[in-house]
Amino acid sequence: MMRRARVAWNGIVTEAEPLDDGRLRLPDGTIVGELEVMWLPPVEPGVIVALGLNYAEHAGELSFVAPKEPLLFFKGKNTLIGHRGRTVRPEGVNMMHYECELAVVIGRPASRVKAERAYDYIFGYTIANDYAVRDYLENYYRPNFRVKNRDRTTPLGPWIVSHEEVGDPMALRLRTYVNGAVVQEGYTGDMIFSIPYLLEYITEFMTLAPGDVILTGTPKGAVNVQPGDEVVAEIERIGRLINYIV
Amino acid sequence: MMRRARVAWNGIVTEAEPLDDGRLRLPDGTIVGELEVMWLPPVEPGVIVALGLNYAEHAGELSFVAPKEPLLFFKGKNTLIGHRGRTVRPEGVNMMHYECELAVVIGRPASRVKAERAYDYIFGYTIANDYAVRDYLENYYRPNFRVKNRDRTTPLGPWIVSHEEVGDPMALRLRTYVNGAVVQEGYTGDMIFSIPYLLEYITEFMTLAPGDVILTGTPKGAVNVQPGDEVVAEIERIGRLINYIV
Repeated sequence: MMRRARVAWNGIVTEAEPLDDGRLRLPDGTIVGELEVMWLPPVEPGVIVALGLNYAEHAGELSFVAPKEPLLFFKGKNTLIGHRGRTVRPEGVNMMHYECELAVVIGRPASRVKAERAYDYIFGYTIANDYAVRDYLENYYRPNFRVKNRDRTTPLGPWIVSHEEVGDPMALRLRTYVNGAVVQEGYTGDMIFSIPYLLEYITEFMTLAPGDVILTGTPKGAVNVQPGDEVVAEIERIGRLINYIV
Repeated sequence: MMRRARVAWNGIVTEAEPLDDGRLRLPDGTIVGELEVMWLPPVEPGVIVALGLNYAEHAGELSFVAPKEPLLFFKGKNTLIGHRGRTVRPEGVNMMHYECELAVVIGRPASRVKAERAYDYIFGYTIANDYAVRDYLENYYRPNFRVKNRDRTTPLGPWIVSHEEVGDPMALRLRTYVNGAVVQEGYTGDMIFSIPYLLEYITEFMTLAPGDVILTGTPKGAVNVQPGDEVVAEIERIGRLINYIV
């Protein structure tokens, strides 16, 4: 496989291969339009491990010191939603911002993996928009549980692209657009902790399973979003993940 | 159902009902001895939500102030292991201690549940031993990711007991034994945040699914464990969860 989506169509959930013209080919050969299907997250992870403050400039804009070790946290499955889905901005919050992130999808059981072998364990990549509700960041014992775990606040997709097709995941441009205007731009090469480093670090103490996802953090450019906004997270060589704030 | 285990036996994974004499009855009526099966965690949760410092005296012994709001974190599925399993004490650590905890198993999708209706959403209860490797508690941004997420450091079981059979889960005695000696004793009634309160608090911002598990925290009595120790976590009206440190 090169690119693989997961969609609901005509009463079934199925994989789908995106075509160059934007349509999708189902495994039985049926061709469907991209607006005829409901896009689902392209993977059903056992765990979602996320990185906080993995780009130094983003840490700076949130008034945090860049971490000396990876700052890891889990996200719940309840947060996932597919391409073209709607994410609720909760009533009464002051600051909710997008975070365009490269999502790593694990391909085989990974335990005590060395950085130089890390890519052998990676199936491919997709895009995540890891929305944060900053209002809750008041308690340092629990820095981001409520910030990061509201239902449907992590659009994921549109598809997984294989490692082979992406090439070097540390050399990709990330951009976020709100209502068509570029509001965030960064490069995966600016991560504080690279993907091979992260895989070694995490799998030293826990085993990752096929389908597990690592969200590798977001660059600078956090802007408040409002109901009605169209938010597009774009990563070079992967695609464009569209989400609507309601 | 009243009590339900999940075991591997004769090449299959199956549910099993514990009998009064310690043996197990499989769904087809086969009776097997408790040492003839491999005990598995009695549930496969989508997410495991855990509570930090939910008993005031335990917070005190770890030199923390008792929290004013529930201190929530996720645990990975990689941490789960069944009754009678072996848990590795990592080489070179200074402090690894057990934590006997009442585990709540969700029975139906739970979103914006009011405390007074909380028990309608609970399927039953089991026992967790939420081992902690305290050496990693150095960084308050990431208070417990490595402390709490090593493979197989969360024995769960032996079985789920239905809410109806347990009665009031806020009136149960917890005890932990190391090599036969009582080392930890507490009462679920001493939780800072009760089970109904927790269900309301968590489901206000995220949806819990059937099979999801809440680990409700541990009382005072943390003691370092060593390879060779037999650790038994016991909760009144539920059972005894045995684990071996290697």
